[in-house]
Amino acid sequence: MAMTEARPMMPHESIVVERLNALEERLSRLEAQWQHVQEELPENRASIIVFSGDLDKVLPAFIIATGAAAMGMHVSLFFTFWGLNALKKRRDLSGKGFLEKLFALMTPVGTEGLGVSKMNFFGIGAKLLRTLMKRKQVASLEELAQMAQEMGVKIIACQMSMDVLGLTKDELWDGIEVGGVATFLADATKSRVTLFI
Amino acid sequence: MAMTEARPMMPHESIVVERLNALEERLSRLEAQWQHVQEELPENRASIIVFSGDLDKVLPAFIIATGAAAMGMHVSLFFTFWGLNALKKRRDLSGKGFLEKLFALMTPVGTEGLGVSKMNFFGIGAKLLRTLMKRKQVASLEELAQMAQEMGVKIIACQMSMDVLGLTKDELWDGIEVGGVATFLADATKSRVTLFI
Amino acid sequence: MAMTEARPMMPHESIVVERLNALEERLSRLEAQWQHVQEELPENRASIIVFSGDLDKVLPAFIIATGAAAMGMHVSLFFTFWGLNALKKRRDLSGKGFLEKLFALMTPVGTEGLGVSKMNFFGIGAKLLRTLMKRKQVASLEELAQMAQEMGVKIIACQMSMDVLGLTKDELWDGIEVGGVATFLADATKSRVTLFI
Repeated sequence: MAMTEARPMMPHESIVVERLNALEERLSRLEAQWQHVQEELPENRASIIVFSGDLDKVLPAFIIATGAAAMGMHVSLFFTFWGLNALKKRRDLSGKGFLEKLFALMTPVGTEGLGVSKMNFFGIGAKLLRTLMKRKQVASLEELAQMAQEMGVKIIACQMSMDVLGLTKDELWDGIEVGGVATFLADATKSRVTLFI
Repeated sequence: MAMTEARPMMPHESIVVERLNALEERLSRLEAQWQHVQEELPENRASIIVFSGDLDKVLPAFIIATGAAAMGMHVSLFFTFWGLNALKKRRDLSGKGFLEKLFALMTPVGTEGLGVSKMNFFGIGAKLLRTLMKRKQVASLEELAQMAQEMGVKIIACQMSMDVLGLTKDELWDGIEVGGVATFLADATKSRVTLFI
Repeated sequence: MAMTEARPMMPHESIVVERLNALEERLSRLEAQWQHVQEELPENRASIIVFSGDLDKVLPAFIIATGAAAMGMHVSLFFTFWGLNALKKRRDLSGKGFLEKLFALMTPVGTEGLGVSKMNFFGIGAKLLRTLMKRKQVASLEELAQMAQEMGVKIIACQMSMDVLGLTKDELWDGIEVGGVATFLADATKSRVTLFI
């Protein structure tokens, strides 16, 4: 630090310089740590694993997702295992092995095929729930799902589950991502809200 | 910054003033950012969605809630869909439509009517669990629920589910709140622990 | 603060000292608060309650746990209620009362005995899932569980559930901890990801 000065510094002046140096050093350290805190603070983000393929559980997933998006949050919905049934747009048996075909035939196709987790009675429970929701003018699952995509909710299909169940990306909704547990964790570790549904 | 001085500042003195100004500015910026961090840090809070109405799942919800409250945490339990069965104090069929009546008759009333999610065998599983808990002197669900309310655990009933199922606030426990997904998210985004049970 | 000086401080010099004092005080306050933030920031940690004893739900618990551990995260898996079935290494009926024996005989032993939550058909669903996983060269539950332990994932068995179900530590895997809800919460409140599976 070059200081052009007319007379030598007085003792109390050199103390001032020392204190200034110390302050600047402490402040720089705190500013650097601040950078670190900024990166470590959770973001305004929610990450939800949709494991269930039941209508009554996929519904709250989309209700929370659209609610959070409406509040300005970033939302990731990670669909895995039974949850993938909700994302199916059609059933495609071509190119599937016997067991994969069996699984494909045994599992519902898309949101309209989902049952409820309790009192399903071969679909009556799901119909009843849909009727009650319609009467109360609650958005249907299909409306919620479309709303979610329009609101920028990120929808990720679990690659590993797709592999195990023999599902291809073509069979699932358009505009979704495919990813693994690392994809989920990358979002989840920055989230304020993490749920497994 | 007014400085009444007898002689003009020396060059090294004006450098000191510049460094002081710079330090004060950096510090003010950091203090402002600090305020922001304070608001963004998760609070000592847990927010739990109780979607399930199964005895074996409502139990851990209350065990976690009372455990967290005992550790000084703020706890919110958001009861939605089947979970609302646990909050029912009586069954009220008056003023309900046919489908709502059907749902009301098909679903249990209050904590004592809940089954277990596995091996329920028309209530035997729930009785077995209750007997085993009593023998080991574990608090019953009713005791835990009362304890939770006394400890200040916030209990919220989901407005939308109440509408869909045709439940009124009178049918539910006293001293609870009614709210929507925004109510849950307002607490959840400030929480360290978020669960969907 | 002793300052040996040849001449009295000029007015602007005493202002400098005042500003230095004020800066140091503000900085010390910020540094103290900083310590507090460091302790309050969530750690690189995931805490997962494994309540379910279904193969299809215990699997994602271990997939997330090993995935998170591979990304350098600290992971705690807290097994409670049906989840304890996955941790059983053998069935031990000695020293058990009648109801505990009944429960022990009715619940599966270890990961190989677990069914799936949907379409189990007395074990066919679980076998089908295992076959599909093997074909796609996805690690089996047993491999994942071993990997998790080797990667340092902390596995905790719920003490209260063990008491209620009459399970002893000898019946469960080696190298696991036994703890209560406080054990879970101690980890969970420091976690970025909390899930109830």
